[in-house]
Amino acid sequence: MADMRLIVAGAGGRMGRALVRAIAETGDAVLAGALEAPGSELIGKDAAVLAGLPASGIEVSADLWSLSANADGILDFTVPAATIANVAVAAERGLVHVIGTTGLSASDMAVIRSVTSRTAVVQSGNMSLGVNLLAALVKRMAQSLDESFDIEILEMHHRAKIDAPSGTALMLGQAAADGRKIGLDERAVRGRDGLTGARKAGDIGFASLRGGSVSGDHSVIFAGPYERITLSHHAEDRMIFAHGALKAAKWARGKAPGLYSMADVLGLGV
Amino acid sequence: MADMRLIVAGAGGRMGRALVRAIAETGDAVLAGALEAPGSELIGKDAAVLAGLPASGIEVSADLWSLSANADGILDFTVPAATIANVAVAAERGLVHVIGTTGLSASDMAVIRSVTSRTAVVQSGNMSLGVNLLAALVKRMAQSLDESFDIEILEMHHRAKIDAPSGTALMLGQAAADGRKIGLDERAVRGRDGLTGARKAGDIGFASLRGGSVSGDHSVIFAGPYERITLSHHAEDRMIFAHGALKAAKWARGKAPGLYSMADVLGLGV
Amino acid sequence: MADMRLIVAGAGGRMGRALVRAIAETGDAVLAGALEAPGSELIGKDAAVLAGLPASGIEVSADLWSLSANADGILDFTVPAATIANVAVAAERGLVHVIGTTGLSASDMAVIRSVTSRTAVVQSGNMSLGVNLLAALVKRMAQSLDESFDIEILEMHHRAKIDAPSGTALMLGQAAADGRKIGLDERAVRGRDGLTGARKAGDIGFASLRGGSVSGDHSVIFAGPYERITLSHHAEDRMIFAHGALKAAKWARGKAPGLYSMADVLGLGV
Amino acid sequence: MADMRLIVAGAGGRMGRALVRAIAETGDAVLAGALEAPGSELIGKDAAVLAGLPASGIEVSADLWSLSANADGILDFTVPAATIANVAVAAERGLVHVIGTTGLSASDMAVIRSVTSRTAVVQSGNMSLGVNLLAALVKRMAQSLDESFDIEILEMHHRAKIDAPSGTALMLGQAAADGRKIGLDERAVRGRDGLTGARKAGDIGFASLRGGSVSGDHSVIFAGPYERITLSHHAEDRMIFAHGALKAAKWARGKAPGLYSMADVLGLGV
Repeated sequence: MADMRLIVAGAGGRMGRALVRAIAETGDAVLAGALEAPGSELIGKDAAVLAGLPASGIEVSADLWSLSANADGILDFTVPAATIANVAVAAERGLVHVIGTTGLSASDMAVIRSVTSRTAVVQSGNMSLGVNLLAALVKRMAQSLDESFDIEILEMHHRAKIDAPSGTALMLGQAAADGRKIGLDERAVRGRDGLTGARKAGDIGFASLRGGSVSGDHSVIFAGPYERITLSHHAEDRMIFAHGALKAAKWARGKAPGLYSMADVLGLGV
Repeated sequence: MADMRLIVAGAGGRMGRALVRAIAETGDAVLAGALEAPGSELIGKDAAVLAGLPASGIEVSADLWSLSANADGILDFTVPAATIANVAVAAERGLVHVIGTTGLSASDMAVIRSVTSRTAVVQSGNMSLGVNLLAALVKRMAQSLDESFDIEILEMHHRAKIDAPSGTALMLGQAAADGRKIGLDERAVRGRDGLTGARKAGDIGFASLRGGSVSGDHSVIFAGPYERITLSHHAEDRMIFAHGALKAAKWARGKAPGLYSMADVLGLGV
Repeated sequence: MADMRLIVAGAGGRMGRALVRAIAETGDAVLAGALEAPGSELIGKDAAVLAGLPASGIEVSADLWSLSANADGILDFTVPAATIANVAVAAERGLVHVIGTTGLSASDMAVIRSVTSRTAVVQSGNMSLGVNLLAALVKRMAQSLDESFDIEILEMHHRAKIDAPSGTALMLGQAAADGRKIGLDERAVRGRDGLTGARKAGDIGFASLRGGSVSGDHSVIFAGPYERITLSHHAEDRMIFAHGALKAAKWARGKAPGLYSMADVLGLGV
Repeated sequence: MADMRLIVAGAGGRMGRALVRAIAETGDAVLAGALEAPGSELIGKDAAVLAGLPASGIEVSADLWSLSANADGILDFTVPAATIANVAVAAERGLVHVIGTTGLSASDMAVIRSVTSRTAVVQSGNMSLGVNLLAALVKRMAQSLDESFDIEILEMHHRAKIDAPSGTALMLGQAAADGRKIGLDERAVRGRDGLTGARKAGDIGFASLRGGSVSGDHSVIFAGPYERITLSHHAEDRMIFAHGALKAAKWARGKAPGLYSMADVLGLGV
């Protein structure tokens, strides 16, 4: 099979540059295009140079339709509005679409689902092996422990992150809610501040820290009577997410259209 | 000197019962009264029995004025409205007033300050030796590190706690703000949720976890470029706060009227 | 069924006193005897008073044979030599024997197994719900991750603990070894110090901290390429172990003779 | 002043390659030589290429004497035997010698001290800003807390590290010992294993974890009665040590001969 030809969306951002480097480090994929928003000052620049690599001849473009003519997939860690715009083109062009964008709303997810009859989409709040394993453990733990154990989810990310909680924190919260057979939206408590009253049994709490250059730390705490269990993941380098996204793209190539998770890619059967 | 005669406010609550036990464990103080809110179903019950001790003959009362006739001090870990009511009586009666109540507003503090020309008040968000030492380190660290290091404060407490962030977290935040010579109110970021935008340099972030029976954990994180320093305190048992409050009461006995901190009591000179 | 009549071995120690208190707090068990080593200065003292409770009339004795005449079970958190002495009497008398003693050697375990055709023994390095759940997760994690993830086990206990690593740490190590289908004895690395050389793939490392009044903290770390997963348990109070031991004794009453684990008691099927 | 011309010792190792990259990222220093042990298979290879950079023309050599003819300093994170060999040449040639090598014995340090009448040496177990600040806090904390608080030092590093405890852990232990005015060698307890007996008051404990790609985590724990204070440093990337070493080299250029610490370089006055 020929090398997989991949477009990197948001090619000038932190994750975009990590994706460009991950493709360069990998044997059977090549950078086929680099996307940025129309009007970006990066348009026309060499994407590999932006990523700290020797020049590749791939210039940043704002025109996904043209780039798609010559590509097999798109790696997309951007913002919801950009991802929703990309999803229509990816479906029309039959590109594998790997989505690591966080902050997607229920209606964003509905749009994404609507195109999955036409192409393979892998969507996940976190592309690392460790986090996806952790989610499986969290679900099992939430099944085993009743409401005498309170569930709290803590995350920390670098100072440039613009939303909270992280997509990964929400994914871990969803795993806990699934284990307890409750709806996350009804039981999530986010951003405690002021006179909150006592904690309600069965709630799932979220807290977010921001600072420095932290790649991503997550902890799920089960706090019961006089004991606590904490399940944590620490990412040392965001390259683990880039390599996970590449793995997802290669896995999805040739798969039937549909919406897939990293648990599918990793064979975890969560 | 005769044993110090102490009233415990909120005698039926978690901290109140811990204070009653701490007095029983200590040599030179005695329980002289136990206070609860008017209408409480605990009025008339034996305060020592509520605390899991042999009966003392001290019944819970709602009448601080009467109790004060025969007391030297009051230990008060209640709620702001109760503390403000107590402060007037304590001043009028010349009682040492040890205040561990959290959630006090700026106007509450103004009321407290207004009485300190008449009696000795020790007020602190946390009465433990460890936390007060930590605050001194946090202040020094904040002096040494510039804004390339982001400051975040994390705390976790038991499920029954009704306010966030904890008084101790705010006290640590104040120490950080003092070290940086900035105002905490202007730079505090509490309860991050949703599209927050990137973190602003110089902000001090707070996050709160609630669950189980946690006595009180606090961390102050200095997150810089590719390295992080974390200063943490872990309370294994709330008795450390009760014993700290007792120590404060004994220290304040006979001191000149004024507003004192635990740093004064512990001789830390923070 | 009548209340279960229980003997506490090592009744004057930290865990012994916690067991006496746990029995007093529980509805369907009573303290039937208190054991200490021959020659102990505690012989003849009231066991409940030693535990900070009202007098019970149960005096500390060194004669298990006599105590056994009137008991259903024995709770035993002592030292290996004492436990081995107790096990023979418990088997002869048909007592349920709950063993939380740590530091048992392979030959100690052989002696224990030799009596389990005659009575029900529950033996575990840790009697808490949380730790036993954690062991199940550790086993599963060790099955899912290959040797590119290094396994390290860290524990911290109070300053009075006399052996290292803790029984719980070894139990977690065994769970990891079982998950990987390797022998723990061949792959355990304990007490690293000096010129150790590089870590060998597949080893399981142990490290022990001692200090203060820590009831028991354990972490199992899976450290892989650029990411780490940590599974932790924090005991706030040793009463969780005492209550777990009581639960084990009640569960084992009337069970067929045999050697049981806390996973059996808790129905975890680890 | 002309760019500082620097030799990297151990140029093919992890830290050596990080140092080569740090020099390439910095404005006023250049790579003047690359050293490896005689017989290394890397002799003759381009040092920059080994570090993942474009070719520099600087080939790895085993001959420090020749390299020194055209250099101002040497950055040395190797093994004690290599460092001791380098130190004689550096002194003879008047090179600034920055030593980050760990595992140096007292007699190694005596050799190093013997040359500091002839050139400027900066020696430290850790070159990061954060760790050196932490050491200052540890010293202060150890002055403030008596022996009712036990001091424990924990570190974790990647699987390739060959000695334990880390040089940084020992440096933090020294800071604690200095604060308490005790000798570290007499009170250090390393590698607890087996029947250790109860912890002795005043000891300083060390524990080491190894695994994965961890750049370096250190914690100093002060564990007292029912409370714990933990001071931690987390290095996200070993580039912080490389940049710290470069900073030390530039600072030492032109300084009087002598033995300096990173506290001197950073102006911490520890």
